[in-house]
Amino acid sequence: MAHTVQDKKKLQARVNRIQGQLSGLGKMLEQEADCDLILQQIAAVRGAINGLMQVVIEGHLHVHLVHESDEDRRASELEIMLKVLKAYMK
Amino acid sequence: MAHTVQDKKKLQARVNRIQGQLSGLGKMLEQEADCDLILQQIAAVRGAINGLMQVVIEGHLHVHLVHESDEDRRASELEIMLKVLKAYMK
Amino acid sequence: MAHTVQDKKKLQARVNRIQGQLSGLGKMLEQEADCDLILQQIAAVRGAINGLMQVVIEGHLHVHLVHESDEDRRASELEIMLKVLKAYMK
Amino acid sequence: MAHTVQDKKKLQARVNRIQGQLSGLGKMLEQEADCDLILQQIAAVRGAINGLMQVVIEGHLHVHLVHESDEDRRASELEIMLKVLKAYMK
Repeated sequence: MAHTVQDKKKLQARVNRIQGQLSGLGKMLEQEADCDLILQQIAAVRGAINGLMQVVIEGHLHVHLVHESDEDRRASELEIMLKVLKAYMK
Repeated sequence: MAHTVQDKKKLQARVNRIQGQLSGLGKMLEQEADCDLILQQIAAVRGAINGLMQVVIEGHLHVHLVHESDEDRRASELEIMLKVLKAYMK
Repeated sequence: MAHTVQDKKKLQARVNRIQGQLSGLGKMLEQEADCDLILQQIAAVRGAINGLMQVVIEGHLHVHLVHESDEDRRASELEIMLKVLKAYMK
Repeated sequence: MAHTVQDKKKLQARVNRIQGQLSGLGKMLEQEADCDLILQQIAAVRGAINGLMQVVIEGHLHVHLVHESDEDRRASELEIMLKVLKAYMK
C-alpha cells in the first residue's frame, strides 16, 4: 500500500491546516493588516508546506526504498524522489 | 499606502490560486493518486508560496526602504524584513 | 565606505574558517572517511556559507538602503540585492 | 565500496574548485572589490556546495539504499540521510 494511502488521514489533516492558514492570509489581505503580520503568515504557510513535503518524502523513502525488496523498483522510485530533492538543493 | 494594500488584488489572486492547488492536493489524497503525482503537487504549492513571499518581500523593500525618506523608519522596517529573510538563509 | 570594507577583518575570518572546513573535507575524502561524516562536513560548510551570505546581505541592506540618503541610489542597490535573494527563494 | 571512495577523484575535484572560488573571494575582500561582486562570488560558492551535497546524497541513496540488499542496513542508512535532508527542508 502506498505511503500516501497509509498516511492519508494524517496528510489530509496537514492539508486542511494549511488551507486554514491560507484563508487567514486571505482575510489579512482583505482587512489590510500590517505587512509584517502578512509576511509572518506567509512564512508560517511556507513552513507548513515544507513540513508536509518532508513527511511525504520520508514516507516515500521508507516504503519504496527501505521496505521494497526488488532492486529495480527501488531504482525507479529513487528517480522519482531525486526530481523533487533537486528543487531543494539549488 | 502599504504595499500589501497597493498590490491587494494581485496578492489575493495568488492566494486563491494556491488554495486551488491545495484543494487539488486534497482530492489527490482522497482519490489515492500515485505518490509521485502527490510529491509534484506539493512541490508546485511550495513554488507558489515562495513566489508569493518573493513578491511581498520585494514590495516591502521598495516601499519601506527605497521610497521611505525617514532613516529611522527604514531601520525599523529592515528589522522586520531580516526576521523573514533569516528563515531562508539557514 | 562599503560594508565589505568596514567588515573586512570579520568577513576574512569567516572565509578562512570555511577554507579550514573545506581542507578538512578534502582530508576526509583522501582518508576515505565514512560517508555520513562526509555528509555532515559538507552540511557544516553549507551552513557556514549561508552564515557568510547572511552577514553580507544584512550589511548591504543597512549601509546601502537604510543609511543611504539618496533614493535613486537606494533603488539601484536594491536591484543588486534582489538578484541574490531570488536565488534563495526558488 | 562506499560511494565517496568510488567517486573520490570526482569529489576531490569539486572540493578543489570550491577552494579556488573561496580563495578568489578572499582576494576580493582583500582588494576591497565592489560588494555586488562579492555577493555574486558568495552565491557561486553556495551553488557549488549545494552541487557537491547533491552528488554525495545521490551517491548515498544509490549505493546504500538502491543497491543494498539487506533491509536493516537500508533502514539505518536512511536515518543518516534524513538528518542531512531535514536541514534542507526547513
